[in-house]
Amino acid sequence: MRSLTDSNMSMTDTTESLRALEQRVQQLEDRLAIYQLLATYGPGVDSVSSRAVAALWMEDGVYDVGGQELLMGASEIGELVDREPHRTYVAAGCAHVISLPHLVLHGDKAVATCHSRLYVRDGPQWRIARLSANRWELVRTTEGWKVTRRTNRLLDGSEKSRDLFTEGLRQTPPAEVAG
Amino acid sequence: MRSLTDSNMSMTDTTESLRALEQRVQQLEDRLAIYQLLATYGPGVDSVSSRAVAALWMEDGVYDVGGQELLMGASEIGELVDREPHRTYVAAGCAHVISLPHLVLHGDKAVATCHSRLYVRDGPQWRIARLSANRWELVRTTEGWKVTRRTNRLLDGSEKSRDLFTEGLRQTPPAEVAG
Amino acid sequence: MRSLTDSNMSMTDTTESLRALEQRVQQLEDRLAIYQLLATYGPGVDSVSSRAVAALWMEDGVYDVGGQELLMGASEIGELVDREPHRTYVAAGCAHVISLPHLVLHGDKAVATCHSRLYVRDGPQWRIARLSANRWELVRTTEGWKVTRRTNRLLDGSEKSRDLFTEGLRQTPPAEVAG
Repeated sequence: MRSLTDSNMSMTDTTESLRALEQRVQQLEDRLAIYQLLATYGPGVDSVSSRAVAALWMEDGVYDVGGQELLMGASEIGELVDREPHRTYVAAGCAHVISLPHLVLHGDKAVATCHSRLYVRDGPQWRIARLSANRWELVRTTEGWKVTRRTNRLLDGSEKSRDLFTEGLRQTPPAEVAG
Repeated sequence: MRSLTDSNMSMTDTTESLRALEQRVQQLEDRLAIYQLLATYGPGVDSVSSRAVAALWMEDGVYDVGGQELLMGASEIGELVDREPHRTYVAAGCAHVISLPHLVLHGDKAVATCHSRLYVRDGPQWRIARLSANRWELVRTTEGWKVTRRTNRLLDGSEKSRDLFTEGLRQTPPAEVAG
Repeated sequence: MRSLTDSNMSMTDTTESLRALEQRVQQLEDRLAIYQLLATYGPGVDSVSSRAVAALWMEDGVYDVGGQELLMGASEIGELVDREPHRTYVAAGCAHVISLPHLVLHGDKAVATCHSRLYVRDGPQWRIARLSANRWELVRTTEGWKVTRRTNRLLDGSEKSRDLFTEGLRQTPPAEVAG
């Protein structure tokens, strides 16, 4: 990008500078849009808002919860909040909280890597019932960023959870990472 | 907004593009300013910095802690850190931590929705003594964003905590939400 | 900065506006780059990625863990993940999570202040084994932002942990704060 330090810029220079700046702003907007998407998940599931949760995923999106479970499609993922054990957690008092995510963006694809915790009330305090490594694969759509696949691996000493983190920290394009 | 893909832009186009870009940058700045405000609260109360905490609220701001308690005015809110049970928490070792917030901005108003946790030391570990759904209503002032009202609802299985989250996730303007 | 509200801007005005906007975008990029750096630490140590952890620090960077321990240099800090007690934590299942940081930027220097928690698996749940006040001193390099010094103080009721937070919330330039 051309530096803006010359006091006399031509019209062409100005157009170029504007384009370069616009791209940088777009990148920042993408990052904040993904933060916002991830910040919607916890309040969504904790308030049993199945529609708000479903809307985060692509219609054919996947949630690989770990264990044998693989949820297929946004509506099935949204319905998770009406099933056990989630209903029991909500009745007791629960919170799904993610950590500030590490992001790798590449055009219309992105990967977010973070921790997630499930807190469940237990008498006068809350215990941590689940603590997982998370990988969110995302795609830009005309309606904003959506999740194509979320993968959870319990941080229980398993190699799988460590591999998920290692993979997420690579700075290679998400397209390759996911491929 | 006019696309920047034409190589020959007129002066008018340039001015328009600059204006549109400036508005997008302002939106990003607003979001990061609100992140920063919320990230100030925890270190503020945990270090008994009553002035720093008070400065986050409008002079006539409110903190609806839940239960019967309603703190009125920035100074009363700041003084919270010098009262019980906060003093006991600080003496034991405590941390007030919020999650990455979901934001809805609308001009000079905003609503941030997130979780908050109060950790208190208990021998060789820390227990989670409070875990709440949070709604922060904010307004832009000449000194930056300030809190007009913070509402906390314990995530103890109550409908109130779920309603707070549901309300926060609506994409309607905060003005209406708060009205 | 000149307002963009006049419909006829001269070329000089345009150049000035572009420069001002570019600086604002740079500030936003700096903030998000520091968020990203801090979001790399947890997944890095939890996956025993000593190289990824070392790369966050300057070659001669310092990690003041608290207690008597002072780690000197990026490689020694990266090797932390291969030592005890970290290996035992990883084998059991652990998570290092930071909170949304409070940032003070001043040119090529920055200070980030936040909480950090170490969760370690304990049977069917996770306990909080460490909870600290954190100060990250950062510098901009040609390879992006790097940590010059991280200071941890356990939130165990000690004055040191409170002082760290109080210092971090000052809006004075990091250069002075660190000096």
